[in-house]
Amino acid sequence: MIHNIRILGIDPGSLYTGYGIIDSQGDNLKHVASGCIRTNGGEFTRRLQEIFYGVGALLDEFRPQELVVEKAFVHKNADSALKLGQARAAAICASLPQALPVHEYTPREIKQALTGRGGASKIQVQHMVKSLLRLQGVMQADSADALAAAICHAHSRGMRLRLAAGQGGQQ
Amino acid sequence: MIHNIRILGIDPGSLYTGYGIIDSQGDNLKHVASGCIRTNGGEFTRRLQEIFYGVGALLDEFRPQELVVEKAFVHKNADSALKLGQARAAAICASLPQALPVHEYTPREIKQALTGRGGASKIQVQHMVKSLLRLQGVMQADSADALAAAICHAHSRGMRLRLAAGQGGQQ
Repeated sequence: MIHNIRILGIDPGSLYTGYGIIDSQGDNLKHVASGCIRTNGGEFTRRLQEIFYGVGALLDEFRPQELVVEKAFVHKNADSALKLGQARAAAICASLPQALPVHEYTPREIKQALTGRGGASKIQVQHMVKSLLRLQGVMQADSADALAAAICHAHSRGMRLRLAAGQGGQQ
Repeated sequence: MIHNIRILGIDPGSLYTGYGIIDSQGDNLKHVASGCIRTNGGEFTRRLQEIFYGVGALLDEFRPQELVVEKAFVHKNADSALKLGQARAAAICASLPQALPVHEYTPREIKQALTGRGGASKIQVQHMVKSLLRLQGVMQADSADALAAAICHAHSRGMRLRLAAGQGGQQ
């Protein structure tokens, strides 16, 4: 009933774009790959290019079926917001040719899904990411955020599938 | 000496992305096409998609050799800055597969190049765009801004070529 699905989570940033790929089969989650696309902080177009082709390379190598990007909360700083917007769009545009469904969750929704508390700390989220994916050792913050977004989507998707199955049974 | 070049100017926005294509041969400028990619204001990913594929279609149809995008000035409103950043990146990412050189000018530089005054009004810029390209009638604001960016680049490029030629002659 619940099909296996591969999810790519992205935590975009103009200097560091974290990524995390998981396989989700029902409640069972498996870590596939995670890391960070580092742009060299140089010229702006070059940075967009690195994110665009970096995400493109991940899509080619790992063939995820769905993309999840942290929804940008409104920054206080307009300059940061502009850079974040550009990084987000570069990641999403890379997925357009493959017509991947793109899902967005707020940081609060992601924290809620992982720890049960929307106000959880980054450390708590990282701890849950490692625990749910049975990972050891130190985890990079950008990778952890990207994996957290992917896990949040796996949960939310699982819930929707169960609800749909339940509604089907009542008919 | 001064080769003909086709320039695509883009004035990005999350609802209206203006475009303007000109041919520049030395001081002679020719209007090729201009208009606006209107996103339907719907879901965010869909809007990015419309800009990305809209710019891609212009590149395929008109084969410009260089891309010019208005440099984003820092907005007071962070939410607008985020949306603008996303729209800009979608336009630029569309050009990456064709490896077009991307140039950026501030609104002030564009106004300066067209009217001689960095603080010129939009109406004055539109008037100069129409005059330089020998266009009649009403001009859409987004198209005019995109054409203005392309013209600014044509001027700046012509200046650089003349300077380079002058330096060459002195050697």
